[in-house]
Amino acid sequence: MKTVFSPRHAGHSGNVELDTNEIVPAYEKPSRAEFIRARIEAVGLGPIVEPQAHGLETARKVHDPAYLEFLESVYPEWLAAGRSGTAMPYVWPTRALRADVVPTSIEGKIGFYAFDAGATFVAGTWDAVRSSHDSALSAASLVESGEPAAFALCRPPGHHAGSNFAGGYCFINNAAVAAQWFLDQGAKRVSILDVDYHHGNGTQEIFYRRSDVQVVNLHADPLFEYPHFLGHADEGGEGAGEGFNHNLPMARGTDWSGWSKALERGFKLVSDYTPDVLIVSLGVDTFERDPISQFKLVSDDYPKIGREIARLRLPTLFVMEGGYAVEEIGINAVGVLTGFEDR
Amino acid sequence: MKTVFSPRHAGHSGNVELDTNEIVPAYEKPSRAEFIRARIEAVGLGPIVEPQAHGLETARKVHDPAYLEFLESVYPEWLAAGRSGTAMPYVWPTRALRADVVPTSIEGKIGFYAFDAGATFVAGTWDAVRSSHDSALSAASLVESGEPAAFALCRPPGHHAGSNFAGGYCFINNAAVAAQWFLDQGAKRVSILDVDYHHGNGTQEIFYRRSDVQVVNLHADPLFEYPHFLGHADEGGEGAGEGFNHNLPMARGTDWSGWSKALERGFKLVSDYTPDVLIVSLGVDTFERDPISQFKLVSDDYPKIGREIARLRLPTLFVMEGGYAVEEIGINAVGVLTGFEDR
Ligand SMILES: [Zn+2]
Ligand SMILES: [Zn+2]
Repeated sequence: MKTVFSPRHAGHSGNVELDTNEIVPAYEKPSRAEFIRARIEAVGLGPIVEPQAHGLETARKVHDPAYLEFLESVYPEWLAAGRSGTAMPYVWPTRALRADVVPTSIEGKIGFYAFDAGATFVAGTWDAVRSSHDSALSAASLVESGEPAAFALCRPPGHHAGSNFAGGYCFINNAAVAAQWFLDQGAKRVSILDVDYHHGNGTQEIFYRRSDVQVVNLHADPLFEYPHFLGHADEGGEGAGEGFNHNLPMARGTDWSGWSKALERGFKLVSDYTPDVLIVSLGVDTFERDPISQFKLVSDDYPKIGREIARLRLPTLFVMEGGYAVEEIGINAVGVLTGFEDR
Repeated sequence: MKTVFSPRHAGHSGNVELDTNEIVPAYEKPSRAEFIRARIEAVGLGPIVEPQAHGLETARKVHDPAYLEFLESVYPEWLAAGRSGTAMPYVWPTRALRADVVPTSIEGKIGFYAFDAGATFVAGTWDAVRSSHDSALSAASLVESGEPAAFALCRPPGHHAGSNFAGGYCFINNAAVAAQWFLDQGAKRVSILDVDYHHGNGTQEIFYRRSDVQVVNLHADPLFEYPHFLGHADEGGEGAGEGFNHNLPMARGTDWSGWSKALERGFKLVSDYTPDVLIVSLGVDTFERDPISQFKLVSDDYPKIGREIARLRLPTLFVMEGGYAVEEIGINAVGVLTGFEDR
């Protein structure tokens, strides 16, 4: 399996995040991707290629164009306002506040386009986001051109980013852009199977009223876990999208025995939908020693996930999402991929 | 003029807040109230009395009872979850996230009931919030019983707190509870004139669909200033409340010449409404040296505000809101009150 990976991800580094009542170095850091890259080389998964540059025309079909412009301009505006260091919001447009007027000051804008203080900006963020987006599209091209599978080693990740908001370390929703791109190439139906520990609230929001992209999420119950305000089992889609969104929330402490049952349910949903392409939002923060998560998968479980996915016999694009146990992220993410190749 | 003030405000101390990309000691700190109290004594404004204890039955008419229960339980739950220090949220239910399911974990709950990371909790917060609420109601009783005016030296402040959310250093909306209480005593119409630098988004939200409380806000334009997502001139109330909400946003750098014109417009609106009682949400963060604000009022302007308010010849309850230039907050807030008494 080929991997598409850009060294430009490393520009998104040195940023901080709000963790409870402290400002800490972001958990979503460059070494995550580098450990995965190193593991790919160590096990000989296949070639690692750099992405080709892509325009934002596909991204503009799943994200508000004004939001994409914001992502590009936020850090220069932050500096122009006399601020320095990590750009992050401090107030958010929750219920009873307006969602229809974008503030003019950068302090207002950055909150307007966010739902937490976790997708933070430094000078190199936009270039890294663009390169991550390019990796997803370049890997999608490999699948479109006949490869049975490809791996987009995306960083930053994407599944928390919605049509017009960042959050949870995510800016552009790489999997959503790839799904749109497959449709634009002629696919009739695309399934996104999100196996990250956290609910992919951005992916759900983007496709919630559409029937051409099925979204299946396996994740920690939002009653106890981030993102807390989406991901319940009763969210089934709306309008034309009704019946095409599926949430499988699980309890704190879920291990392979429980998680694999949800995976089987997810496979059934995907099979019944008969998609032309499968996109796997691949997070490995389900790992027992992940620093910010509370599931109990062990490293030996990840190849099993890959083997099971392969049994769907679908053209498959793996898109990297979360996973924060830095050394093990390589073993676990690449474990899924080698499992898929049944070796 | 009598002042109602509780020393129990001091229990809300030692908390931190998110200021841009740093965690800093909260700007809303105990010395704010103590400087005002000292100034009241220095100028001999009148007696300072402690509030009487009040139940929450009036508060439950303007706040969701579940929200009030949350305010009481949040810090014990925070400790029970194994956390320590300041309790504050890290993810918020913005657009595309659900407002109808309250998470069970304290991390989820605290974000559910907030719109920023500025209303933070320590062990003494709830007791201070209760005492601040009691001060507002006890001062309202003084006005109800015939005093021409009274000053509720409330801390924490209240005008950013809405029916079911905290933010901007505010938890219970003291002015809103007092307005409801006046109505419950037989008043037909109550005006709230909010002269704080920031838009009183909570007060607006609470009364937005009601005609029995007029809300007039003078504040920094939300396009550039906190709370950023409410306070525009086109927000006039809804349903039965249509025509009873008035926003007078002003530009960065506004000084007395501009600010006093907005005040005159506010007075006209209040006069035309012919309220039985006037509540002044008294913030003095319009001051030129306020550390978090950008208006240019000087200390000599504050007695003029009080003198102008007195010309409305209405029973008047002053409720303390913001103001962060710690030493001058006493001079400026008490300046309004002595100006009202025309001395
Ligand atoms: Zn995750
Ligand atoms: Zn203020």
